[in-house]
Amino acid sequence: MPAQLVKNMVGRMVPTEINGEPAIPYQGIGKYRPTGQKYAPKISTCIDYPSDGNKLVPTLKNALEKAGLKDGMTISTHHHLRNGDLISNLIFDIAKEMGVKNLRWFPSASFPCHEYLIKYLEDGTISHIEGSMNGQLGKFCSQGKMKKTAVLRSHGGRYQAVQDGEVKIDIAIISASCADAFGNANGLNGPSASGLIGFALADSQYADKVIVVTDNLVPFPCYPWQIQGNNVDYTVKVDKIGIPEKIVSGTTEVTKSPDRLLIAELTARFCEEAGLIQEGFSFQAGAGGTALSIGNFFADIMRKKGIKARFARGGSNKYLVNALEEGLIEYILDGQTFDLDGVRSMRENPNHVDTSPFTSYNYHGKGNFASMVDVAILGATEVDLNYNANVVTHSDGYLLHGIGGWQNCLFSKNVILPIPLFRDRIPVIKDEVTTICGPGELIDIIVTERGIAINPLRTDLLERMKGTKLPIKTIQQLKEEGDRICGPSTKPNLSDEIVAAIKWVDGTVIDVVRRVID
Amino acid sequence: MPAQLVKNMVGRMVPTEINGEPAIPYQGIGKYRPTGQKYAPKISTCIDYPSDGNKLVPTLKNALEKAGLKDGMTISTHHHLRNGDLISNLIFDIAKEMGVKNLRWFPSASFPCHEYLIKYLEDGTISHIEGSMNGQLGKFCSQGKMKKTAVLRSHGGRYQAVQDGEVKIDIAIISASCADAFGNANGLNGPSASGLIGFALADSQYADKVIVVTDNLVPFPCYPWQIQGNNVDYTVKVDKIGIPEKIVSGTTEVTKSPDRLLIAELTARFCEEAGLIQEGFSFQAGAGGTALSIGNFFADIMRKKGIKARFARGGSNKYLVNALEEGLIEYILDGQTFDLDGVRSMRENPNHVDTSPFTSYNYHGKGNFASMVDVAILGATEVDLNYNANVVTHSDGYLLHGIGGWQNCLFSKNVILPIPLFRDRIPVIKDEVTTICGPGELIDIIVTERGIAINPLRTDLLERMKGTKLPIKTIQQLKEEGDRICGPSTKPNLSDEIVAAIKWVDGTVIDVVRRVID
Repeated sequence: MPAQLVKNMVGRMVPTEINGEPAIPYQGIGKYRPTGQKYAPKISTCIDYPSDGNKLVPTLKNALEKAGLKDGMTISTHHHLRNGDLISNLIFDIAKEMGVKNLRWFPSASFPCHEYLIKYLEDGTISHIEGSMNGQLGKFCSQGKMKKTAVLRSHGGRYQAVQDGEVKIDIAIISASCADAFGNANGLNGPSASGLIGFALADSQYADKVIVVTDNLVPFPCYPWQIQGNNVDYTVKVDKIGIPEKIVSGTTEVTKSPDRLLIAELTARFCEEAGLIQEGFSFQAGAGGTALSIGNFFADIMRKKGIKARFARGGSNKYLVNALEEGLIEYILDGQTFDLDGVRSMRENPNHVDTSPFTSYNYHGKGNFASMVDVAILGATEVDLNYNANVVTHSDGYLLHGIGGWQNCLFSKNVILPIPLFRDRIPVIKDEVTTICGPGELIDIIVTERGIAINPLRTDLLERMKGTKLPIKTIQQLKEEGDRICGPSTKPNLSDEIVAAIKWVDGTVIDVVRRVID
Repeated sequence: MPAQLVKNMVGRMVPTEINGEPAIPYQGIGKYRPTGQKYAPKISTCIDYPSDGNKLVPTLKNALEKAGLKDGMTISTHHHLRNGDLISNLIFDIAKEMGVKNLRWFPSASFPCHEYLIKYLEDGTISHIEGSMNGQLGKFCSQGKMKKTAVLRSHGGRYQAVQDGEVKIDIAIISASCADAFGNANGLNGPSASGLIGFALADSQYADKVIVVTDNLVPFPCYPWQIQGNNVDYTVKVDKIGIPEKIVSGTTEVTKSPDRLLIAELTARFCEEAGLIQEGFSFQAGAGGTALSIGNFFADIMRKKGIKARFARGGSNKYLVNALEEGLIEYILDGQTFDLDGVRSMRENPNHVDTSPFTSYNYHGKGNFASMVDVAILGATEVDLNYNANVVTHSDGYLLHGIGGWQNCLFSKNVILPIPLFRDRIPVIKDEVTTICGPGELIDIIVTERGIAINPLRTDLLERMKGTKLPIKTIQQLKEEGDRICGPSTKPNLSDEIVAAIKWVDGTVIDVVRRVID
């Protein structure tokens, strides 16, 4: 579909129309001002709901029928059950059985287990996916096989898009490890517990019809009600919503790679020397092996200095929980729990707080938590000389990852990307990244095993680090070093065809993904 | 303002226009179907809010100025601080100082301390009140002195009106006993703790500008965030938001009156014999002396039968808290805490849950909690032979009380009004009540010190109570007994002039209040 292309403020050619809807090119950080009102769902009435609160219907199929599933609808699901999700595939099996076509699937993220849905993308049951695609689904999209253009958003961008009416959800299906018949639900209890189900918040608030599916039905009230039954139309009890071993891996461990350990140590030392680790500070680190190590190094520094963090943002895991329980952190403000220690802690510890993309990331709110965080530790597949970074495609052009909360966390006061200088002998620092997911002006520090680059915009940090023994270099120097070791980068072999759009946190288009020529 | 009057479905003449806005006459229970969409607030953007989350402004006046306070606006406040509220009066002092006129005050309820505002109603700073009026403000209204028509709504009706855009709030001022600079707030901690601040939820979600005022500023994150900072525009720190002794009375005690005790005992015995007190049942009782006694009798019955309640709805108090702590009740789902034991329990006990008018009472949601409650114990100033009841006016016609959650609780499975047969030698059961606040078909049982009347619609209860030794009578018999003792009722001396409208839970007009001729 040859839409008109315009050059946006990071120099990328992006369409002004996606799947027949107008699209706004990225205009720079804090430049695009939304107009108009939030999306206004229909007014409901208690007349249409059972007065005893019992909204149970016998099967998911019944619920989808009652919700009016039909061609062209937008169906939302969530990734709380991660690679153990048993419900998303089932929904489209039912849609197929009902002969429904052309559905837009709007997951908060998809996982390898959803590769199963390729057949429904092929036969037209699903027209396209708007949401993160990991692995085979991303590859399918990269090969230009999806019937419409995919749209990728950050966790906060997904909330924003729903809130602003950019994506109107017809039916939201919310899998919950614990729910009552009224629809109050959480992810804390039951055999499929994943900790919290906050990614479904926007859907529960704004979708036309909301279905809660659980394998652990409890008498009213199911509390805490991370999802409120007052927003729910139907509830369904099934045998099993997820495969526990695949929901929380339980295997997330700190890195043992000497290079990664070095990167983690350099990151922590940098933070300490730059004065970022102070009484009452806050940080967010991911769940990768390097990030976990950094968390441990932070804990060491806090112990040594006798200070504590006011809060850490999750994804939580056993290391963060240990730090909370040791008193090094006052609060974990958690967006998702990555292991069973995280789930237990959230269930038991009132200072382990469940948050949502609304509180943490929504750029079209009256502020959000992300910008209050002192230090955010993030990843990247590629970084360019202007610090622009990519998290969705690899250097071969394939779309293999989602954005997650990455774009949202760029608003942290100090954004650090601890990344290896090369992966599989391909340099990570490029003249130009394949896909720009985040503008360089928000990325402050690149830490590699061979040196640390500080964004020249951060004159304060450059000043503070004068005289350090840490290997401070320019990003050009780091790039040259990478190129010297690996040889010059080759460009991915891409066609002009746009297969996916990458939205910025404000709903504008920051870049596109193009079809890979095999 | 002579608006057109029509007879509504409870036979009352009501206007089709109130203060220039169209009004819908009451159509019967579950008959009025809302159309259209919920109110859609403007889309905000983080561009307009400080990235460090610090929304503090020096004074309430600054905040009101920044919020754009001007003539004709709707200003909302809440009654969490009850008769100890120091902020509402201050707001209108500031408005007066700024020369602003013609404000609509939209409190969740007003208290005797707000009598202070009569001068601003007189000088035109405030045009009128939409919200419960207790005491002198109600008298002022009853005398026809308010410039526009007052509108009274239940707690759920207030949420509904805001959600549906019937009342557009320009500036919401939320007093909180604990808040951070971002605007996260609760009523649990600090010298002015009142337990919860759920009455402000709708305002925080839908008002154009939201100001949080606290006397207890804590570092981010203030948790729990009963009000979410992501909905807040400005925060203000003041010395004192309330007078603690007047916020929670601490004096709510069970009745010592022999007649009231008898009513309480009869009510409890009725509930037991009618089989309403079963394992896993639920109940809601108010904070009056009779209601508290009934709670105690319920506890005795539960102990005797060895059963427990799944939940009790608050207003909570020490008696309910004792029952929770003793294990007689699994959850308190609380709308407001009436004493310090309630505040403490909500702070400490995860099973003492704060609710909101959205979860509990909103009739324009996908169900609500009120209809799931087995037994609701409510009051009334008058009841008629068709079980229609009044809670806002006295038999002399004066508007002296608000509706509170009363209308919403009528949706409980068994609604019991334990009331004395007469007050001050005026019978409570009438041929016709002064003001119909709730239709008789929702009211199941009247318990007086001289007998119990069961609504003939409840053939199941009449059947179950056959052969009881309890004094079951008809409501006609009760009325005759009251009249015999007190002499026949006289009608209040009322003019035609409408001074207030009483809304039903769905936003329709169930009755009006007319000016009292002194």
